[in-house]
Amino acid sequence: MPLQPGDLLAIVAPASPISREAFAAGIAVLATWGLRLTHGAEIFAPRPYTTAADKAAAQRLAQAITDPEIKGIICARGGYGTIRLLQHLDLTLLAQHPKYFLGFSDITTLLCLFSQRAGVVTCHGPTVAHLAEIWPEAQEHCRCLLMEPSLERLCFPDLQVLAPGTAQGPLVGGNLAILCSLLGTPFAPTLSGHVLLLEDYNEPLYRIDRLLQQLRLSGRLQGVHAIVLGGFTGCGPLPKVWELFASLGEDLGLPVLAGLPMGHQPDNYTIPLGTLVRVDSQQRTLQWLMPGSL
Amino acid sequence: MPLQPGDLLAIVAPASPISREAFAAGIAVLATWGLRLTHGAEIFAPRPYTTAADKAAAQRLAQAITDPEIKGIICARGGYGTIRLLQHLDLTLLAQHPKYFLGFSDITTLLCLFSQRAGVVTCHGPTVAHLAEIWPEAQEHCRCLLMEPSLERLCFPDLQVLAPGTAQGPLVGGNLAILCSLLGTPFAPTLSGHVLLLEDYNEPLYRIDRLLQQLRLSGRLQGVHAIVLGGFTGCGPLPKVWELFASLGEDLGLPVLAGLPMGHQPDNYTIPLGTLVRVDSQQRTLQWLMPGSL
Repeated sequence: MPLQPGDLLAIVAPASPISREAFAAGIAVLATWGLRLTHGAEIFAPRPYTTAADKAAAQRLAQAITDPEIKGIICARGGYGTIRLLQHLDLTLLAQHPKYFLGFSDITTLLCLFSQRAGVVTCHGPTVAHLAEIWPEAQEHCRCLLMEPSLERLCFPDLQVLAPGTAQGPLVGGNLAILCSLLGTPFAPTLSGHVLLLEDYNEPLYRIDRLLQQLRLSGRLQGVHAIVLGGFTGCGPLPKVWELFASLGEDLGLPVLAGLPMGHQPDNYTIPLGTLVRVDSQQRTLQWLMPGSL
Repeated sequence: MPLQPGDLLAIVAPASPISREAFAAGIAVLATWGLRLTHGAEIFAPRPYTTAADKAAAQRLAQAITDPEIKGIICARGGYGTIRLLQHLDLTLLAQHPKYFLGFSDITTLLCLFSQRAGVVTCHGPTVAHLAEIWPEAQEHCRCLLMEPSLERLCFPDLQVLAPGTAQGPLVGGNLAILCSLLGTPFAPTLSGHVLLLEDYNEPLYRIDRLLQQLRLSGRLQGVHAIVLGGFTGCGPLPKVWELFASLGEDLGLPVLAGLPMGHQPDNYTIPLGTLVRVDSQQRTLQWLMPGSL
């Protein structure tokens, strides 16, 4: 359900806490959207690596999901910590309480698992901390997706073709390193049958390759329909990064398109996961197929 | 079989290449041991991330393993690349051609898989690049283990107890990040029933925690008999690192001892993997149970 002006948006911190300064800058943007905001003091507090703290954070998130007053949830920031919540959280909870859930980077874990376990759409997009740092166009795109969504018009053009082909499927993915941190666990998302979105930040080229080797050896790339790449900021020269993915696409016979404006960069556009998309290397587009609103 | 003076030791580079300077410094140490050395020019050449290069590197390693003239193998350095060889290598090859295989860090992959798939002892210890950088005592320990092994006298005392208990089992392990890069793949080593050795280098504390969360959620820590920690150089304040492992040991009911002189540090002692050890938190020791020579 699209958010209406006056609706209550909850700010939660399942990963790292947010600084007061980043919080102030982020809510200044949200304030212009006409939404009411709610948060607990815990979003500013570093969380110790203890089971008690994990359970409290999971409970806080579950409360925000189940509270009927709360119409949407935005994460304070990424960083680290989401993996610690997984055993303490009912990952299907959004099925009974469908509402927007927004974040990226370390939040990838919850974006994918909520989407797949609860069968809902989740939003790969700015956290509160990132909201004030991105371009006005990306802020406005985020606002539209939350408040006036119309997926039939959603299309990202001018992508770079690393491996040719056309494919379609539901979108899954986010941060490559975070996805790989779930491999071998019961929380690894299903990638088969999907269009896989990937971005990363500050991983040297050899680590990107190591992550791709692990993902490939895990068998989870079998049946993936296409790969679409966002930013790989601070991961070495982009042509070198693209080479790795071009070679992967060629080996697996998959279309791979790069240059989607999403990730740790100023044009971090909000991308709905769990929605049906089409990748076309001739048109160089990522286009949404699901008609109507979210 | 212990190496004899005059025996041929092969230097291979299954991970990153070695610089001429590091090579010269390392072989100067090996020269004092009275061993003959052999290597190919490829150990100095950066390896492109291509299947052809992977196959060539795997073939070079297989040649060194099967060559009856070669009595032992030492890796040029760690770095990155071993995971790329796994699909192109017969991991049981050392069973028919038992000989020393020595390295650490990225080489963890081969140390564990050779040990477990071929049922042989492998040596977690200095690469050629590291050999000149470690203390003379650690160099001499390496020489003794290769040339005059006597495991019944091998015992590391004065370890720090993070979680109490006694346990025994065959040794497995090495670099934590490298072990986790195998999770979810057919190449993840068996840890159950083993004493697990861990070290890491330049992983911030939050990444150490993320790796431990993944390892734990993977189920691979179930049945582990004990954990022994080497260096965690550049991974944040050691007391904070030890807290993570103390809490893990407590949760799993495992003895955890820290301070084993091995890893990315000047006292990188050579540790034979696949051998039977006993961990005792009262004695604060890691002690070998297997009598006789390797």
